[in-house]
Amino acid sequence: MGHFKVNQKDIFFILKDQLNYGRLCTLDRYKDLNEKTLDMMVSEAISFARGVLDPLNEIGENQGLTFNNGRVLCPPEFKKAFRQYGADGWTAAARDPEYGGQGFPHMMRIVVNDMMYGACQAFNMAPSLTHGAAHLIESFGGNDLKKRFVPKMFNGEWAGTMCLTESNAGSNLADIQTTAYREGDHFKIKGTKVFISWGEHDLTDNIIHLVLARIDGAPAGVKGISLFVVPKVRVHADGTLGEANDVVCGSIEKKLGLHASPTAVLNFGAADGCIGYLCGKENNGLAHMFQMMNAARINTGVSGMTLAGTAYRNALEYARERIQGRDVAGRKEGGVAIINHPDVRRMLLWMKAMVDGMRSMIYTGAYWIDMFLEMSDGKEKDHYQNLVDFTTPIIKAYCSEMGFRVCETAIQCLGGYGFCKDYPLEQYLRDAKIMSLYEGTNGIQSMDLMGRKMTIRDGGPFNAFKSEIDQFCEKHREHAELGDKVQTLAGVAARLWEAAGEMKHRLTADPLQWASYTYPALMAFGEVAMTWRLLDMAIVAYPSSLKKGKESDFYKGKVMQAAFFADMTLPHTLATIGTCCRHGREIIEIPDNAF
Amino acid sequence: MGHFKVNQKDIFFILKDQLNYGRLCTLDRYKDLNEKTLDMMVSEAISFARGVLDPLNEIGENQGLTFNNGRVLCPPEFKKAFRQYGADGWTAAARDPEYGGQGFPHMMRIVVNDMMYGACQAFNMAPSLTHGAAHLIESFGGNDLKKRFVPKMFNGEWAGTMCLTESNAGSNLADIQTTAYREGDHFKIKGTKVFISWGEHDLTDNIIHLVLARIDGAPAGVKGISLFVVPKVRVHADGTLGEANDVVCGSIEKKLGLHASPTAVLNFGAADGCIGYLCGKENNGLAHMFQMMNAARINTGVSGMTLAGTAYRNALEYARERIQGRDVAGRKEGGVAIINHPDVRRMLLWMKAMVDGMRSMIYTGAYWIDMFLEMSDGKEKDHYQNLVDFTTPIIKAYCSEMGFRVCETAIQCLGGYGFCKDYPLEQYLRDAKIMSLYEGTNGIQSMDLMGRKMTIRDGGPFNAFKSEIDQFCEKHREHAELGDKVQTLAGVAARLWEAAGEMKHRLTADPLQWASYTYPALMAFGEVAMTWRLLDMAIVAYPSSLKKGKESDFYKGKVMQAAFFADMTLPHTLATIGTCCRHGREIIEIPDNAF
Repeated sequence: MGHFKVNQKDIFFILKDQLNYGRLCTLDRYKDLNEKTLDMMVSEAISFARGVLDPLNEIGENQGLTFNNGRVLCPPEFKKAFRQYGADGWTAAARDPEYGGQGFPHMMRIVVNDMMYGACQAFNMAPSLTHGAAHLIESFGGNDLKKRFVPKMFNGEWAGTMCLTESNAGSNLADIQTTAYREGDHFKIKGTKVFISWGEHDLTDNIIHLVLARIDGAPAGVKGISLFVVPKVRVHADGTLGEANDVVCGSIEKKLGLHASPTAVLNFGAADGCIGYLCGKENNGLAHMFQMMNAARINTGVSGMTLAGTAYRNALEYARERIQGRDVAGRKEGGVAIINHPDVRRMLLWMKAMVDGMRSMIYTGAYWIDMFLEMSDGKEKDHYQNLVDFTTPIIKAYCSEMGFRVCETAIQCLGGYGFCKDYPLEQYLRDAKIMSLYEGTNGIQSMDLMGRKMTIRDGGPFNAFKSEIDQFCEKHREHAELGDKVQTLAGVAARLWEAAGEMKHRLTADPLQWASYTYPALMAFGEVAMTWRLLDMAIVAYPSSLKKGKESDFYKGKVMQAAFFADMTLPHTLATIGTCCRHGREIIEIPDNAF
Repeated sequence: MGHFKVNQKDIFFILKDQLNYGRLCTLDRYKDLNEKTLDMMVSEAISFARGVLDPLNEIGENQGLTFNNGRVLCPPEFKKAFRQYGADGWTAAARDPEYGGQGFPHMMRIVVNDMMYGACQAFNMAPSLTHGAAHLIESFGGNDLKKRFVPKMFNGEWAGTMCLTESNAGSNLADIQTTAYREGDHFKIKGTKVFISWGEHDLTDNIIHLVLARIDGAPAGVKGISLFVVPKVRVHADGTLGEANDVVCGSIEKKLGLHASPTAVLNFGAADGCIGYLCGKENNGLAHMFQMMNAARINTGVSGMTLAGTAYRNALEYARERIQGRDVAGRKEGGVAIINHPDVRRMLLWMKAMVDGMRSMIYTGAYWIDMFLEMSDGKEKDHYQNLVDFTTPIIKAYCSEMGFRVCETAIQCLGGYGFCKDYPLEQYLRDAKIMSLYEGTNGIQSMDLMGRKMTIRDGGPFNAFKSEIDQFCEKHREHAELGDKVQTLAGVAARLWEAAGEMKHRLTADPLQWASYTYPALMAFGEVAMTWRLLDMAIVAYPSSLKKGKESDFYKGKVMQAAFFADMTLPHTLATIGTCCRHGREIIEIPDNAF
């Protein structure tokens, strides 16, 4: 049974045929690995997702959470799965062995999350946040902090969170008020955080919160924010648990989706008994936290994509089985499966292209992360850093926006049944809605992309992205089957580069007009990136698509989805690019009371 | 308190300034009415929606429904409201006084539904379906049926439903199996209907089901379907209630939204005790039912639009109050309300234009219904019938699709709070999702539009719609402020007419390719209709927008929303039109096992 559906062949096509990810094993850090070990890990992740996480999705949705006097009770199956997830090495798959990691490439963390989030979004946030929190300590904490906290987080004994948002400091972290008062070798923490995912639960005996707070007397704004390790239960130097640390859950949110993932209000130090440890440099907390935030942003894109993926495949299965209506061209007698109806196929083909394109975009970005982090210093490393920086907000915003749209389309394939809880699709839709909102709204992502990412390092991130697309188009513009689509992409991309330049000018010359159109601009970048990845896959698949027999169907699908997507999407991309540079100022000038 | 929000001024601007709806009172049927009576009715509908229905929305969502042994228990407040709704004349507002109607124009039923659905979608389906069912009897039933059933349905004593779908006959009604066996002056009904909205409940002592069934021995397909009146409780000739009529509710669906609206499986005659009365002509049932189906399709568009409307205004209120972040251009010191952020304003302005445009499109269509139904025979009446026929599937599909999108955008304005049940937006999103699915999926609507509606009466419906747009563009192409937008609309519309012609050719020459792109074609028609209505409003508002002082802001808003919408939308419409006539055949040719 189970609802999680993924086509392993699609996954491996991207990893092996398109990206040749075995190349990662030539990097020094992975010299003991080879492509087969990577392949095995992917297969095992799919098995684990299917066997352990998939059943949790329905259990979590049906049982939900109980909040009682500051405590959150989860379905007991979640506790068992969390422990197993850590013990089996999934939490720290990509971390160094020193603190219990498996030493796999960074990329594999993202591939693993693809499977795990697809099987149970609400659950997988717990180990994923735990990993991020532990890795923050591993990256920036002192030796004592590392030894005391990291191994038990990696092995599933304890959990972790990221505590940023306050009720009046969401998108704008500069305004956070939580305060840290120096007391000997540690700090006393005081303040309230909201929207803390997995901020309180009964999966583990301890929860290690990574908290942004302002050291008493620190400068105002983002330059006065520090990062603290704040356990729910105090931990003695020998690692044993002590008394409660005055971190109290005030309530959990009632939400549209993610019903099995507690979103907590956390009160730190209401009784003056909350101890925290500085992690990394004083007043450098936000910069440190960005390691976790960037990973979380990519994970958000992964979630949007993978929920879309399983939604698509559930709709596909339904379309193959559901008999309704007659063939519009009379090719068959009597009732036919709805997969025969062109309007249903239109939705299926679009979803297929969306999912495959988003997955390829994300895996490509994941591959770049390894190149950036593990290559030795030099131009190439910088190039990959630039690519990662530029594509992170695109992956976050585009895949969350469009992942939701795919879930919606999957429901549409089921007609009225799509609205019913008998099928998992309505849950995917509800769960997916959070992706455009958390980890920085998509509006924030678009301002990051068209602002900071256009300007830092002398435009390096933008130029790196541009050069990848331009080189691809140059190389393949004469391709026998897909050359004309490549040329169309090249034309649209050229217009986008121009528009991006114009918007960069407006960023300082006319910031209100700039900010009016950063969001459509981000979507245009997303569409160009998608078309690029889909055409690249199609070109890789093309020779095999020409072979005779059923075997070639898979590859024909890659070619056809790219041609269809390019034709259906790029004219809209061009339209979007045009709107980004328009001169009409209605957004800014409409009087507030005219709304 | 309450969440339902509507700007009365926007409503009256469309009704009075744009449509001059007082003109309806020159029609013979309305000669005793005048514009003031119509205005009063609109104001009272808003009051009733705010006072009586708005509170039900939260009650219904929180308490939901209880299903117990074939019975459905609703919140008691619903029962009281249903009775009052009928008694106060809302159910039969637009019906003739003979059976208890108020004699208002047909248009007013749609305006009233705008308010009522906006305040509580789940509840208002009950009286709206009751109206439709009663009106079917009124239109096609014999005198005895009319007298026995219609007055008590209009006055809120009894409720009504439409029973079409069966588990294997949803989109394709030709396959329905429910059978009627002749027995004296009535029939015995046997069969199971699914997805029956308000099919069982405790709001009233009786429920009158309007059921499509096949008279034993009738021809196969749609030409063998008849319409029956099937009460839940038998009704004696004198109108008193008799015994139960063997209509048993097997279960109700668990759904994404509309938690207070029971969606029932109904078993008719499982114990051979279900009596039904033929309504209208034998084997003509589907044609009769289309009166109710067409009204329901328009109502579905109304629901999508009005949920979008209240979602927009809730987001607007939040945006005015929520302080977060700094002004991007430094126009103000310190934290600012998020309505100052251009990206938020972009969403607000787009939602404003969407809601106003959809409402104008729907009200315009509603006005046409009166002209079609109440004018004396002739070319003008035919013209209005053509317009109504053509725009019904556009209103249904476009407003359901885009209404949902507006609800999604409204959530986006709230950031993480949009995901929380503390605000009504997540419910609007869930409730709105049904609109693209029921009353014929949007795919079905698109095939109706690009198929039947392009071909019946020698292309009359299409030509009527085309002539309205063409005349408008011709008349206003030199408008001082909006002339260039009008010209752009004219150019896009011309391309759409060409594409529609090409698709009409494909309908017979290449039906698979035709059916692959009916849906984007419908959306293009929707965008052209929207731009037309918004530009028309803008032109009406233009003189007042030039005046000095705050009073003109409202009119400036109309001008600005039209300019913004036209610029942001029409380039995409053009892109969509291009895709509708493409020659790529991937949708049809992709092998099934390549998905």
